[in-house]
Amino acid sequence: MGKEKVAIIGSGNWGSAIASIAGKNASRQPELFDDSRIPMWVFEEEVNGRKLTEIINETKINEKYLPGITLPANIYATSDLDEAVHDATAFIFVLPHQFLGKVIEQMKGKVAPGAKGITLIKGVDVTADEIRIFADIIQKELGIRCSALSGANIADEGKFDRFTVAAEKFSETTIGYRKKEDGEMWKKLFETDAFRVQIVEDVAGVSLCGALKNIVAVAAGFMDGLEWGDNAKAAIMRIGLLEMKQFCLEFFDDVKAETFLQESAGIADLITSCKPAKLLVKVAFVKAGKSFEDLEKELLNGQKLQGVHTVSFFEYRKWPSVKLIPCVLRKAKDVHGFLKAKNRVEGYPLFAAVYECAFKGRDIKTITKHLD
Amino acid sequence: MGKEKVAIIGSGNWGSAIASIAGKNASRQPELFDDSRIPMWVFEEEVNGRKLTEIINETKINEKYLPGITLPANIYATSDLDEAVHDATAFIFVLPHQFLGKVIEQMKGKVAPGAKGITLIKGVDVTADEIRIFADIIQKELGIRCSALSGANIADEGKFDRFTVAAEKFSETTIGYRKKEDGEMWKKLFETDAFRVQIVEDVAGVSLCGALKNIVAVAAGFMDGLEWGDNAKAAIMRIGLLEMKQFCLEFFDDVKAETFLQESAGIADLITSCKPAKLLVKVAFVKAGKSFEDLEKELLNGQKLQGVHTVSFFEYRKWPSVKLIPCVLRKAKDVHGFLKAKNRVEGYPLFAAVYECAFKGRDIKTITKHLD
Repeated sequence: MGKEKVAIIGSGNWGSAIASIAGKNASRQPELFDDSRIPMWVFEEEVNGRKLTEIINETKINEKYLPGITLPANIYATSDLDEAVHDATAFIFVLPHQFLGKVIEQMKGKVAPGAKGITLIKGVDVTADEIRIFADIIQKELGIRCSALSGANIADEGKFDRFTVAAEKFSETTIGYRKKEDGEMWKKLFETDAFRVQIVEDVAGVSLCGALKNIVAVAAGFMDGLEWGDNAKAAIMRIGLLEMKQFCLEFFDDVKAETFLQESAGIADLITSCKPAKLLVKVAFVKAGKSFEDLEKELLNGQKLQGVHTVSFFEYRKWPSVKLIPCVLRKAKDVHGFLKAKNRVEGYPLFAAVYECAFKGRDIKTITKHLD
Repeated sequence: MGKEKVAIIGSGNWGSAIASIAGKNASRQPELFDDSRIPMWVFEEEVNGRKLTEIINETKINEKYLPGITLPANIYATSDLDEAVHDATAFIFVLPHQFLGKVIEQMKGKVAPGAKGITLIKGVDVTADEIRIFADIIQKELGIRCSALSGANIADEGKFDRFTVAAEKFSETTIGYRKKEDGEMWKKLFETDAFRVQIVEDVAGVSLCGALKNIVAVAAGFMDGLEWGDNAKAAIMRIGLLEMKQFCLEFFDDVKAETFLQESAGIADLITSCKPAKLLVKVAFVKAGKSFEDLEKELLNGQKLQGVHTVSFFEYRKWPSVKLIPCVLRKAKDVHGFLKAKNRVEGYPLFAAVYECAFKGRDIKTITKHLD
């Protein structure tokens, strides 16, 4: 077996953090990884009048997305995707999901035979009656075996604890693999004393955890808004976790219940996602008594959200995250559409309640009705 | 089958809350329960110059332990244990664990044949190399089949969300039974629209969850004190949950992993127990850098805790709970002693770390070392 040549496709907050870890680990294990030069593909943009790639390559700091953290010397930024892809055998996909299709198109036919991939992209691709995980899309389109990484290691929003991983405070993640040798290789590339990796033979489970938890987090936010207390919120999280698990066992092959119940990608990520700070807009939504459509309109128009002043028990400085919440709520809508197409809405009473409260004017106080 | 005659042994915050629920449910189901008069045994004390039993029986309010909540008409308070026990077939044990031995002694020989029990007492009885659950003690000493109830339904401290259950906000609990008919009977007595009951054939698991979670909550409190962020804390909770599960599977028969991973008594109760408000003193402990022995001495002497002023991000009004924390930390010591006697300390690295940080001067920053 030759050494793995790593390429990082993406350079946002999470991409830069994982580049920092992977770069150092490659250097520590030169028998496993070609550590001379690890490309990090950057969607070029100007920052203070300079190109972001130039800033990163000169200062070794991604000033825009991970300020304050010096990347290892072997990481270099390039805006040329072909250059990043050339020769690489181990691709880390860590970019906003809306860019994935275009990147895949450009990579087609240029990927070395036998290369492997791993996706750190949160979410899933939902159409009317189909849910596809990104690892499957990458695997099918590029013909490379693709793993998935998810866990309580960085906020979706990439805002609140953006330094946690990069600064090497303790956290965990889960890698779902198809072949154990892949899981072990990625673990060697990513694990540090402070960033612990568990591997499980469950790509779909790991991928779906990160998507479905958002629906449960909305419900948990409703609980905060109602001020029904810790016990009600914990109950909702428990019920939600079981619906997540049931959903995946029902609609996906080879999913393991343990991924949801025992792994960082499951229960631990759900716990961090339901922290009040991350639920601010969901709470505001309850307090303001608005429909999601109105809320979205206001947000899209850059208007200040009405009713926020009533949410006095949260910290206002975290408010910027609101712009990301519509996509979280949209997940509830997508999954509802999927369940409707499968005629299985009634099997998931919490998912249904979140959808109906957000989009159909159902009274949020009724959210606990019909739950088992 | 005759109707069940319920007796409530205990009348504190939790006892009064459950009396309220059981009294109403007995009235709703007269075909199942003799609802004419449900005794609630009260350890007599004076409140504002009057006997507590008199206050409860006249006002239907337990002024001392559950003010503001009117108990149903069929609940009556008595300080005469023999009177409470007489004729009853369904005993609810809900009293501080230190009184249980004496109550059992007095009940011996007076319990109707075929009677059943359920314990709501938190904790376990730990001696040098033995851990006994209260349901087993009751069952053995009184010869009645005993279930156990535990869940994210009320704080151990009985302080922060004391009204949650009684005021009928949404919460859940888990009943572990030995015979399904027992579980079903207790569920009928306790479940309401807002207070949901799941039943599992696992008395030991339900009982042990409530005891072992305290060790994990201490570790979570350390994380808050270190300010390592949400991800580190979620990781510790996840790892702790798995150690709880492993501990019970290793040392107890017929325990089910699902009780820990899926039930209110397990994961949901752990989540509420790790809320920052409940971890205040553990955080203060970290900040002050004191040994637990010193901390305990100060608390027992009624002194103000040093170093508290550094914990600026928590609410001071919740401070009264500190007096209960030594018993939480003592749990870590007891379990450590048990594991040592079994020569299995190294199998539980998080439990060991909590013990060593609390009692042996180990640096709390090393708590994540040697964890899997």
